[in-house]
Amino acid sequence: MQTLDLNTAFTLIEPGPVVLISTNDGQRDNLMTVSWTMVLEFSGVFALCTGAWNHSFKALQATRECVIAIPTVDMIDQVVGIGMCSGADAGVDKFARFGLTRAPARHVQAPLVKQCLANIECRVTEFVAAQHIVVLQALVAYRDTARQETRTLHAVGDGSFVVDGHRFNRRAAMAGKLPPGE
Amino acid sequence: MQTLDLNTAFTLIEPGPVVLISTNDGQRDNLMTVSWTMVLEFSGVFALCTGAWNHSFKALQATRECVIAIPTVDMIDQVVGIGMCSGADAGVDKFARFGLTRAPARHVQAPLVKQCLANIECRVTEFVAAQHIVVLQALVAYRDTARQETRTLHAVGDGSFVVDGHRFNRRAAMAGKLPPGE
Repeated sequence: MQTLDLNTAFTLIEPGPVVLISTNDGQRDNLMTVSWTMVLEFSGVFALCTGAWNHSFKALQATRECVIAIPTVDMIDQVVGIGMCSGADAGVDKFARFGLTRAPARHVQAPLVKQCLANIECRVTEFVAAQHIVVLQALVAYRDTARQETRTLHAVGDGSFVVDGHRFNRRAAMAGKLPPGE
Repeated sequence: MQTLDLNTAFTLIEPGPVVLISTNDGQRDNLMTVSWTMVLEFSGVFALCTGAWNHSFKALQATRECVIAIPTVDMIDQVVGIGMCSGADAGVDKFARFGLTRAPARHVQAPLVKQCLANIECRVTEFVAAQHIVVLQALVAYRDTARQETRTLHAVGDGSFVVDGHRFNRRAAMAGKLPPGE
């Protein structure tokens, strides 16, 4: 996995892919599937909507850190499966159950997900309690540049998922409005 | 345009499409292109990241209402064009400039965008100032069910846009976790 310029990490989240949130509560690793994310700043600040209804929320509160891992279309059934079981169930190791490999992170205890296209180590900077928003600051971001499959998934919320299709380039038309480095 | 069950409106935003935000400041209509949105609740509560750097923010503050309009892939150059000019410029009528047609909304002064796949009339319920988050409650949502082109766009943030590709059905695997009505 290749380290990315942190100022480009927002381009991993802006298109709206379904992501996995990797946490470690001090005893166990866990993964959850999340679609409710958005970018807050070009410098790698993200919002995540979650709360006590997700077991991983406890780890986010206790450790104030996580990894955002971005799966691709070939991982659809792992993404769905992770979303359908809870880390609260005794003995559930979602990495083992779904054939995913941990890779050590640099700044957080939560593991990276080796099979994912990209991983972003994050620190929680804020809990906006009333709206169930967790604010994350990216610490380091990686991309697997050797990966053949790079198409991500977009959850619709009705049990269907849309995969990335054709990519249109409008860089020329947007010159002057692209953030530095883009 | 057909009225949707409000409890399904979140499925328009969850996949992460680029959207147009339509406002009316009491004198003029305006449109802005936004990618930084997310769902906050299944009942049609959304977050939008914007602030004083967008001219439309003044109208959001003053009127506490807007329309979220969802364009499709055939509207890519309108989406880019709207993002590249400001309603602050004297005489800019983005509807006229980009060949878009207003349709009257029921609950807000801001117009719907007739060419869009879907429109959601919204009330601003909260400004989370520190994070530049505007919280929106959907009042009514519409979908153009006669439209042939239904593929939405996902902004990457680097001047490229990804269009919706194949749609996978995982309803059976997700039974029991889908919200009511889905």
